[in-house]
Amino acid sequence: MFFRSKMDFMITILRASAILTNSDPSFIKDGFLVFNESAILETGEWSHFHKENYPVVQVTDLGNKILFPGFIQTHIHLCQTLFRGLADDLNLLDWLQTRIFPFENAHSPESIKVSAELGLLELLSNGTTTLMDMGSIRHYDSVLEAAERLGIRGYFGKALMDENPLFPGLSETKSEALSSMDDQIKSWHGRDSGRIRYAVTPRFVLSCSSDLLQESHDRVKNDPTLRYHTHSSEQESELAEVRKRFGKDNVEVFDELGLLGKETLLAHCIWLSDHEKELLKSTQTRILHCPSSNLKLGSGIASVPGLMASGVSVSLGADGAPCNNNLDPFIEMRLAALIQKPVLGPTAMPARTVFKMATSGGAEALGLEKETGKLAAGFKADFVAVDLNRIWNPIEPETEDQFYSALVYSAQRENVTDVWVNSKPVKRNGELTIADEKEVMFRGRKELKKLLGRI
Amino acid sequence: MFFRSKMDFMITILRASAILTNSDPSFIKDGFLVFNESAILETGEWSHFHKENYPVVQVTDLGNKILFPGFIQTHIHLCQTLFRGLADDLNLLDWLQTRIFPFENAHSPESIKVSAELGLLELLSNGTTTLMDMGSIRHYDSVLEAAERLGIRGYFGKALMDENPLFPGLSETKSEALSSMDDQIKSWHGRDSGRIRYAVTPRFVLSCSSDLLQESHDRVKNDPTLRYHTHSSEQESELAEVRKRFGKDNVEVFDELGLLGKETLLAHCIWLSDHEKELLKSTQTRILHCPSSNLKLGSGIASVPGLMASGVSVSLGADGAPCNNNLDPFIEMRLAALIQKPVLGPTAMPARTVFKMATSGGAEALGLEKETGKLAAGFKADFVAVDLNRIWNPIEPETEDQFYSALVYSAQRENVTDVWVNSKPVKRNGELTIADEKEVMFRGRKELKKLLGRI
Repeated sequence: MFFRSKMDFMITILRASAILTNSDPSFIKDGFLVFNESAILETGEWSHFHKENYPVVQVTDLGNKILFPGFIQTHIHLCQTLFRGLADDLNLLDWLQTRIFPFENAHSPESIKVSAELGLLELLSNGTTTLMDMGSIRHYDSVLEAAERLGIRGYFGKALMDENPLFPGLSETKSEALSSMDDQIKSWHGRDSGRIRYAVTPRFVLSCSSDLLQESHDRVKNDPTLRYHTHSSEQESELAEVRKRFGKDNVEVFDELGLLGKETLLAHCIWLSDHEKELLKSTQTRILHCPSSNLKLGSGIASVPGLMASGVSVSLGADGAPCNNNLDPFIEMRLAALIQKPVLGPTAMPARTVFKMATSGGAEALGLEKETGKLAAGFKADFVAVDLNRIWNPIEPETEDQFYSALVYSAQRENVTDVWVNSKPVKRNGELTIADEKEVMFRGRKELKKLLGRI
Repeated sequence: MFFRSKMDFMITILRASAILTNSDPSFIKDGFLVFNESAILETGEWSHFHKENYPVVQVTDLGNKILFPGFIQTHIHLCQTLFRGLADDLNLLDWLQTRIFPFENAHSPESIKVSAELGLLELLSNGTTTLMDMGSIRHYDSVLEAAERLGIRGYFGKALMDENPLFPGLSETKSEALSSMDDQIKSWHGRDSGRIRYAVTPRFVLSCSSDLLQESHDRVKNDPTLRYHTHSSEQESELAEVRKRFGKDNVEVFDELGLLGKETLLAHCIWLSDHEKELLKSTQTRILHCPSSNLKLGSGIASVPGLMASGVSVSLGADGAPCNNNLDPFIEMRLAALIQKPVLGPTAMPARTVFKMATSGGAEALGLEKETGKLAAGFKADFVAVDLNRIWNPIEPETEDQFYSALVYSAQRENVTDVWVNSKPVKRNGELTIADEKEVMFRGRKELKKLLGRI
């Protein structure tokens, strides 16, 4: 239906019953959105649409659907998608040592590729148009190939680990780690007009030498379009180990090594001292909040409203399938709102705040705030249509806040009907258009069986 | 497809790739289930199915779906379904005083009927086959009529309130309350061979005189097939008010009035002293746990694992649509597991425990443990088929625990394809068979507009 000819491709005009833009105006009832192959050209009220402005005026009417910027998940482990359901109700140490590390270590190029494909299809299907991925140490080109082909936007990076006392097999030397990373940066960073970008990704402070942490960070100092992505302050036991080894807290160690800054994104940040919070704020370091994972692994609840109020960037991610067990932005939004309320009261984290955190907040975290996360002229055409006209939401929202509420508190992945990334449709009328789901699932099953056989 | 002739009706034979029974054996791979118009006759492995035992051998093969007992939600407010999305991010006092009480007070027989229908269609669609409902003070026959017609099993009761300082209009005299309740018990308790039953339902200790609490409880003493359903110990501010008024804690007040016992079910029970926990245990009083609602209203997190370990019955409910904002057993299961783990560790509340809490645990709470909640000969044919063969769950579970994990941590309402209650199909192949959803939604919108106009 789309892009059948060059002419069709050049201009697409959508009409929807409501548009949330994260821009000004933030809410358009009965609106239109026009985009071409590289960006959004115009949004507005349908009654103000001037067809004479455009050579082709074939309007796709999305009917009673709501259109809004695609979700941005800033912390995902695509290489773990294959391990969903195989590591539940376990302590973190067992989870890593008896499951995740041996599984990752047994990945082949084929198994990690299908793991990434499964994750990407799930993410695109549920309306996630941009992500930041943390890989494993090997075969990361396979993940990048899948991401390039399936059309998502994002930052990607192989995991750097030159120390792994829990599972020594899953590590490499510092020079192996850096040289394979440098090759990947050279091959991949900036591909498809910047849709695919690279993030330097040391796994966490206890799996990297200080030299690896610093030398890898030098790459980001030399090229500020790269990002620096790692974990920090996830569990109390980890905190104790960091203190034992370094005599200070996790974020303080990063500060001492010169790793903090607006290019640095830290997943979790649950256990922070006041001094660490101050460091994150003053250096503009970003926090990647993963509520499902933080609960499921028993890590704790990050003090998100306080951090946001002090001006720290907090965005959302589903983490990996084995600690969630979904990669679903609706689940993460709802939880991000709900888990703060028992402590801070029911008015903490209102739906509007959470919606922004899951969309434009993610773009700001990644430094992509001029490219994506908003529906306005000049932004990339990354957006989602949702059908709210369902039995669990029988009353049509009217005010802008009622739309945020319906999306954050009631809607689920099943309600995402259409998704566009970078001007290309990846889901239309409830069906992915970019891959044969059943074929990928079949291949996933085959590869998992083989992988488990390798352990 | 079903029940076309008397003969078809008498025996239905289902085959599914896996069956979770809550009975012995608890897990059947490639299994069958046979039921007639009144009960389940037999379950077992397909390879042991003897067709010569049955006059009609037309097998409905559910293919790669999993079959399990229907969800049982023990605390629901059907009369509030119409108010979803109209009362978000508010403190409890504002929530009640400016929204819920005025809305309930403005209900007409038509608006409360469509509110109940919308809730029931949502519940049946997501696999809830039994519920316990707390109504409002007026027009409760309309709710009962909807429940009788749409085919759900459960306990129902009008809310009793003879005091309401927050919103005096929404109350009646003790004798009005008791006489209309007595009429409803007489008309409804035990209808359709016990599918519809009555629960005496004082709203909560602060909205009822002690006389009303006790005299209504007398009905249950006289007829032990009734239940006694109320709220307790939901918020700290409520606790303080109870202490101020009675000089003791909420459950202690109930104890003093002689209201505790295995016929009594208390929603929430978040703020309990050790003495109150002891009282609940020794009297076999049941707790109705509502994790979404408890988070969203900022109430707190109930100490469920400790209570269960001490032998107290804890079952699950979604509460009302305006404090959730779904009526979804999958959301409640996942949250019931996740919210305990940051405090008690990731092995607390494993998936199997939560699944049982949402099914057979609910049956036990309601005293229906010999009727529903299990798939075994003699039990009512109340069950659900779920398709796990989806992109978010690409790897087929193999072990019993992997099935619980997939249902509790990954599955969502969209994956419920088929639902039977009391031997009748209410959903088949993803579509409700009992009502025209769009017509009910249309009527809901009309009635909500009229209701808001009445305020």
